[in-house]
Amino acid sequence: MTKLAVILSGSGVYDGSEINEAVLTLLSIEESGSTYECFAPDMEQMHVVNHLTGEVMVNESRNVLVESARITRGDVKPITELNAIDFDGLIVVGGFGAAKNLSDFAIKGAEFSAINEFIKVATDFKNAQKVVGYMCIAPMLLTAVYDDITLTIGNDADTAKTLEGLGAKHEVKDVTSVSIDIENRVVTTPAYMLANSLLEARVGIKNLVDSVVSLSQ
Amino acid sequence: MTKLAVILSGSGVYDGSEINEAVLTLLSIEESGSTYECFAPDMEQMHVVNHLTGEVMVNESRNVLVESARITRGDVKPITELNAIDFDGLIVVGGFGAAKNLSDFAIKGAEFSAINEFIKVATDFKNAQKVVGYMCIAPMLLTAVYDDITLTIGNDADTAKTLEGLGAKHEVKDVTSVSIDIENRVVTTPAYMLANSLLEARVGIKNLVDSVVSLSQ
Repeated sequence: MTKLAVILSGSGVYDGSEINEAVLTLLSIEESGSTYECFAPDMEQMHVVNHLTGEVMVNESRNVLVESARITRGDVKPITELNAIDFDGLIVVGGFGAAKNLSDFAIKGAEFSAINEFIKVATDFKNAQKVVGYMCIAPMLLTAVYDDITLTIGNDADTAKTLEGLGAKHEVKDVTSVSIDIENRVVTTPAYMLANSLLEARVGIKNLVDSVVSLSQ
Repeated sequence: MTKLAVILSGSGVYDGSEINEAVLTLLSIEESGSTYECFAPDMEQMHVVNHLTGEVMVNESRNVLVESARITRGDVKPITELNAIDFDGLIVVGGFGAAKNLSDFAIKGAEFSAINEFIKVATDFKNAQKVVGYMCIAPMLLTAVYDDITLTIGNDADTAKTLEGLGAKHEVKDVTSVSIDIENRVVTTPAYMLANSLLEARVGIKNLVDSVVSLSQ
């Protein structure tokens, strides 16, 4: 039975994990007959965003791990407790949390850096040649860990160009498709970089999870 | 095409809508070929609960509508803008938000009352003889609006007894099943009153949505 680690980065598309992506990922993992554990960094969020207005709530602060627990009914551990050796593969959910909490890509673009705790985990999976799946904007994190990586973030030309400047090869993909880098054992899908509905997100995310499970066997 | 209104009550099982239930409901609605709009009350939550520890965060306050917007990527309206005449049916998602924000059932049990804005909407759907679906603990709200109602909250004997004391007839159901009260046009399912996995919740919620869509045609 395949056992996957899932990294969350809060709860809500504009300051944390995209909630639909997180739930659809866990559903697809269960449907594949695999198991999972969820992890998130124990740190303050970069922002708290009012998801009704899109505005930053300047006087609020929330913890990434604590908010991630909303999605998982409490069942999430600090990312420092994630050991690659315990899992067959890794999935990183998207949303601005990947670009604000796991890294500062949302602010710094090409000059971004990822947090040390994430770099360690992602490097461990890479070095162990275990399969990983990244969705939405999260594939940009791969450029901090892998050389000569092929990935997709959908079809956004500016973001693709930024990632190519960081050494990645970008493949344009639609929302139902995945990009598979066989050599690096990396699967990516656009998810809510392109999805206009849960139905669309569902297809691409299931495709990503099934590809990760299949490649890890 | 069936058009459903969906009522949320925050974002997170312990102080708002159960997130998995909300996402699986919207996914099932899309899969049925129906459309939806989401609504939530514009009010402070009863509690903000740390979902990692289960403890109330005594110095925090959050708005039910604003937090509900995390699940829907911003696409949620105040419940005061929900007119039954615009929809074929109604679905009410569970989680403690139903028992803390839409009502005070979590504190007062049999002595509970629901908020006026909810009572108005639920009564309008009842009077228009439109189909409604309630899941998890939310079916307790039906006792505030319907007489001689048949419903399920799963198999919890204490809760069932409380609801029977309020005039409901309780049917024991498993997580995959629905209770259908044909006369009142009411469908209920246990969802996370019983679900131990997304797979289990998925089956019962899809069953509920499909029953609501089918009865509304």
